[in-house]
Amino acid sequence: MKILIIGAAGMIGMRLARSIIKNDFNGEIHDITLFDVIPPKIENHKNSYKIKTGDISDPNIISELINQKPDIIYHLAAIVSGDAEENFEKGWDINAKGTWHLLEGIRKKFLTSNGSYKPKFIYASSLAVFSGPYPSAINDDFSPNPETSYGAQKLVGEILINEYSRKGFLDGVALRLPTIVVRPGKPNKAASSFYSSIIREPLNGIEAILPVPENLCHWFASPLSAIRFLRHAAKLDFKKLGNRRSLNLPGVSCSISDQILALEEIAGTKTSKLIKKIPDKKIEDIVNNWPQNFMADRAIELGFVADKDFKDIIQIYINEEINT
Amino acid sequence: MKILIIGAAGMIGMRLARSIIKNDFNGEIHDITLFDVIPPKIENHKNSYKIKTGDISDPNIISELINQKPDIIYHLAAIVSGDAEENFEKGWDINAKGTWHLLEGIRKKFLTSNGSYKPKFIYASSLAVFSGPYPSAINDDFSPNPETSYGAQKLVGEILINEYSRKGFLDGVALRLPTIVVRPGKPNKAASSFYSSIIREPLNGIEAILPVPENLCHWFASPLSAIRFLRHAAKLDFKKLGNRRSLNLPGVSCSISDQILALEEIAGTKTSKLIKKIPDKKIEDIVNNWPQNFMADRAIELGFVADKDFKDIIQIYINEEINT
Repeated sequence: MKILIIGAAGMIGMRLARSIIKNDFNGEIHDITLFDVIPPKIENHKNSYKIKTGDISDPNIISELINQKPDIIYHLAAIVSGDAEENFEKGWDINAKGTWHLLEGIRKKFLTSNGSYKPKFIYASSLAVFSGPYPSAINDDFSPNPETSYGAQKLVGEILINEYSRKGFLDGVALRLPTIVVRPGKPNKAASSFYSSIIREPLNGIEAILPVPENLCHWFASPLSAIRFLRHAAKLDFKKLGNRRSLNLPGVSCSISDQILALEEIAGTKTSKLIKKIPDKKIEDIVNNWPQNFMADRAIELGFVADKDFKDIIQIYINEEINT
Repeated sequence: MKILIIGAAGMIGMRLARSIIKNDFNGEIHDITLFDVIPPKIENHKNSYKIKTGDISDPNIISELINQKPDIIYHLAAIVSGDAEENFEKGWDINAKGTWHLLEGIRKKFLTSNGSYKPKFIYASSLAVFSGPYPSAINDDFSPNPETSYGAQKLVGEILINEYSRKGFLDGVALRLPTIVVRPGKPNKAASSFYSSIIREPLNGIEAILPVPENLCHWFASPLSAIRFLRHAAKLDFKKLGNRRSLNLPGVSCSISDQILALEEIAGTKTSKLIKKIPDKKIEDIVNNWPQNFMADRAIELGFVADKDFKDIIQIYINEEINT
């Protein structure tokens, strides 16, 4: 079985690649291609994967990738939210048209192979397809209504995946991932960055800034769960999805005060006191419009499993990033 | 004020053009351009409008149209449902990419005019964005999930209109029109065609075929209401739409048995007996997946008004097409 990971240099892409290489390479999976604008670096295992670099807004690159006939294609590549909002054309070119090129490349291969080539296509979508006002818990029938360019681009991708799947050109699923915490590394410019910082920095003995009120709730998953979601999707019988290829994934709904409490229980008040409240109205306004809670019934029924609670999410960070 | 109607040769486009020309030309509105692949024909009033023909998948044509700086753009052009389903590329080229070209043309004019050009953009969307299973009445938060190419293309158009409006390049609205009955003329290949036939043919003394069970419900508006919706949208303060530019429009929810009863009350049993039941499983399967009922609260609050009942809808056909 051949696997192609598009966006393999990102935080999730690299973890996914590592997980597949470490656990399954040379078993069922004998060919792994990692694709991104910059070459992904996976420690060790140098002979277990191929690397390709390029831009998915270039149809020639797409042809090259699809000509290898990967059986499973993970599409995780995207211009991030802030960049897509600032750079309208770039965001639409890469996040929406890039995805479309990719699907078109697959469709053409499907047609020239007389339907013998029909890969699984696993797409990382986002909670950014939604906007408020929200019900107390968002169910599987709640309408997306993006209020960011990134969210609109992801939603166009979802509709195309649904359509190309329904027409039988490929077998796709769009996974609306919860916000992934705790991300390792430095804070970035994403509005959600503080959600990782307020846990990560204190655990490393550094002060962190909390820019929003403590009662704000949001929907989370650990990087480990994100990888489990993506790998579970590869094993899923997509017939069970019918013509509804977008899935709200299960997660942990948690207020910031509960997050701080969880941190305190794990690492003590000395650690949690490193969180400094410095309100930032701009970030508060953005985060206020994010989903707080879901009833992800369909995904749960399909076997996707969330983290147990926020303490679990913190513990995963400690195990993966501190105790190694 | 300049008006551009794209798709002006269609049933709704021509009626809209007639309504504007007859009631408002040389008042507030001094310039009307009718655009379609074939030249629209409006009886009389020959000096009140300009005609342009072409294909909206051609960016040069778009530039020409937008260079005239229309204040209000009606975008009603589309490859119909059956055609879009059979001809995948054609449907996506015209219904989705054509709409995108149009929005891009407007955005470019917005940019080159330093933001002084910002038209109202009124888009005919469709119930085809939805699929079942449905709640007893679809509310404004119910998620679209197209199960036809046409519906998917319309939904991509909606997302783009929302996005281009949110970014301030234009001021758009997407009107999800109910199924329009009673259409004049001959039956066509649309699965919905029988909904007009079973009223129109008997009223003209001709037999009509009913291919689906009488208990099937659906959501209707008269051509007159459709024109009122489109004209009401032009007068609407779009600020009231916020960032939710797609509207489920009000209509009449009616079962086929109630439609037959309404026909009987208006024209007697001799007329209604001209409806012959010849079940067609293929059509039944399609129609079974169509919305039956809505709570169109937002649109009603914004002043969109539905037909009173199905008798009203039949009477409008009689007034417009038989008693003239």
